[in-house]
Amino acid sequence: MKVKIGVLGPHDTNEREYRLGVELGEEIARAGAILLCGGLDGMMEAAAKGVRQAGGESIGILPGDGAEGVNPYIDTAIPTGLGMYRNALLVRACDAVIAVRGAYGTLSEIAFALRAKVPVVGLETWTLLRDGEVDPGINLAETPREAVALALSLARR
Amino acid sequence: MKVKIGVLGPHDTNEREYRLGVELGEEIARAGAILLCGGLDGMMEAAAKGVRQAGGESIGILPGDGAEGVNPYIDTAIPTGLGMYRNALLVRACDAVIAVRGAYGTLSEIAFALRAKVPVVGLETWTLLRDGEVDPGINLAETPREAVALALSLARR
Amino acid sequence: MKVKIGVLGPHDTNEREYRLGVELGEEIARAGAILLCGGLDGMMEAAAKGVRQAGGESIGILPGDGAEGVNPYIDTAIPTGLGMYRNALLVRACDAVIAVRGAYGTLSEIAFALRAKVPVVGLETWTLLRDGEVDPGINLAETPREAVALALSLARR
Amino acid sequence: MKVKIGVLGPHDTNEREYRLGVELGEEIARAGAILLCGGLDGMMEAAAKGVRQAGGESIGILPGDGAEGVNPYIDTAIPTGLGMYRNALLVRACDAVIAVRGAYGTLSEIAFALRAKVPVVGLETWTLLRDGEVDPGINLAETPREAVALALSLARR
Repeated sequence: MKVKIGVLGPHDTNEREYRLGVELGEEIARAGAILLCGGLDGMMEAAAKGVRQAGGESIGILPGDGAEGVNPYIDTAIPTGLGMYRNALLVRACDAVIAVRGAYGTLSEIAFALRAKVPVVGLETWTLLRDGEVDPGINLAETPREAVALALSLARR
Repeated sequence: MKVKIGVLGPHDTNEREYRLGVELGEEIARAGAILLCGGLDGMMEAAAKGVRQAGGESIGILPGDGAEGVNPYIDTAIPTGLGMYRNALLVRACDAVIAVRGAYGTLSEIAFALRAKVPVVGLETWTLLRDGEVDPGINLAETPREAVALALSLARR
Repeated sequence: MKVKIGVLGPHDTNEREYRLGVELGEEIARAGAILLCGGLDGMMEAAAKGVRQAGGESIGILPGDGAEGVNPYIDTAIPTGLGMYRNALLVRACDAVIAVRGAYGTLSEIAFALRAKVPVVGLETWTLLRDGEVDPGINLAETPREAVALALSLARR
Repeated sequence: MKVKIGVLGPHDTNEREYRLGVELGEEIARAGAILLCGGLDGMMEAAAKGVRQAGGESIGILPGDGAEGVNPYIDTAIPTGLGMYRNALLVRACDAVIAVRGAYGTLSEIAFALRAKVPVVGLETWTLLRDGEVDPGINLAETPREAVALALSLARR
């Protein structure tokens, strides 16, 4: 079975963030991995677009009961009806995840991945301090290429 | 996006039931649809095997935290960690479902599909009586071929 | 800890059905058990009203993100944001359940209870046929009093 | 209906942390609020013990299928069978939550509460940085008494 890499990030993205997402998707597809994401807009759309451009395959884990709001680059949509619990499902289903930027939704996905021992790579995302020290759970990357390489090397098999 | 057809049935199958599952999978693949199933053994394995033989594509929605117990014919495994709640997720994600034989797990999937307005086709499965009358929610089929044709015609789009 | 008895039934009720629900609630409270229900209207409200009248205690497991739609007789509301998955949670949390009348939502709760080995008592509810035979999973009662006595005797401890 | 305050914290606690939990529970009970917690050991037990000592009421939202592992101070146990998804349910059900110390499980609960707009009070817990700045989502308290007062003042009604 192919490795499944999740891309986690905000549904509001500026141009630069969107470009990061597209590059992540392209790298994931080139590596022969499958993209899992939330299936909606912003970073989720950017990553799926990158995958499509590079000839890969994407799965969108949607929060709603149907395919409403799914972006046009998703190959297979999985409507869950789980609302915000779908964030936990999304990371649970991945072999490794890459978090890019992000607000509270992305934070919840990072936290659930850490809790579930799914490897987390971070690209300009949240920093978590415990007793004043940076928690080492998030593996830092500087570029989309580095993020995907790191995610693949850490992926659960 | 391709139509997603779920096959619901027992993890304990006799030879005849297993053959029904294989035929269902073959018909689903020939129709160009994607198979969704629980990803484990018995009817889930049979349907995925049929899909593989006919060159189609299958997704397994697994109850556990990892890919333990997944059958070898599943193309993409989605571990959910949802335990028995995964039954509700499985039907939620389909455009139509086919229930074949089955015990309480299959019954719970049929009921959730009816509740969620996901079309249900039944092949030798449960009969549901309400005030002594057969509930018309399950659309009856006599053969795997008929079941798949019926599921495709009823599928939500 | 007190025994938790679930009452499952439709949110649309006629006068007679509502009265059944009130009597169920009264019997549950008199027995010193806690009522669990879906927390909304119809049968859920009737049972909680009966509990209140008899000085008992009720918990409502709500489908939404907040307490919207909760009936005025619920002592403790648990908003879940789980949508239809809350049906599975409701039965999971009970020591035994009583199904009264009901549509597909109640059917899904009965099926999940059977699947989860939570004892089910039925009062004028669905009949389930497997290979043409009535499945013995639902324990039949004729009156609210009999239903509660049966549920208490079967309750998991 | 009474206000529901969640206490979130580690299942491994040292003596000092356990004492913080007991004090939190006592304050919650004295304020006439209901305690919601994960129902197991460590901080969850400490808070429930404090509630019991001060004559209050506690509900434990358990991860498993049954009441295994529930601590002896919980008044009402809600087994969910949701595994780690129960963390999201726990915060969803509260009017406000207090996070004390904690590891990744507590972090996931903080994140889900922030995502779900459930007010969060923090007592010696995680610090979250976004673009190098402390995120203001966690309301800081110095003592159990201050934490409960703050949670009550912020509670959704």
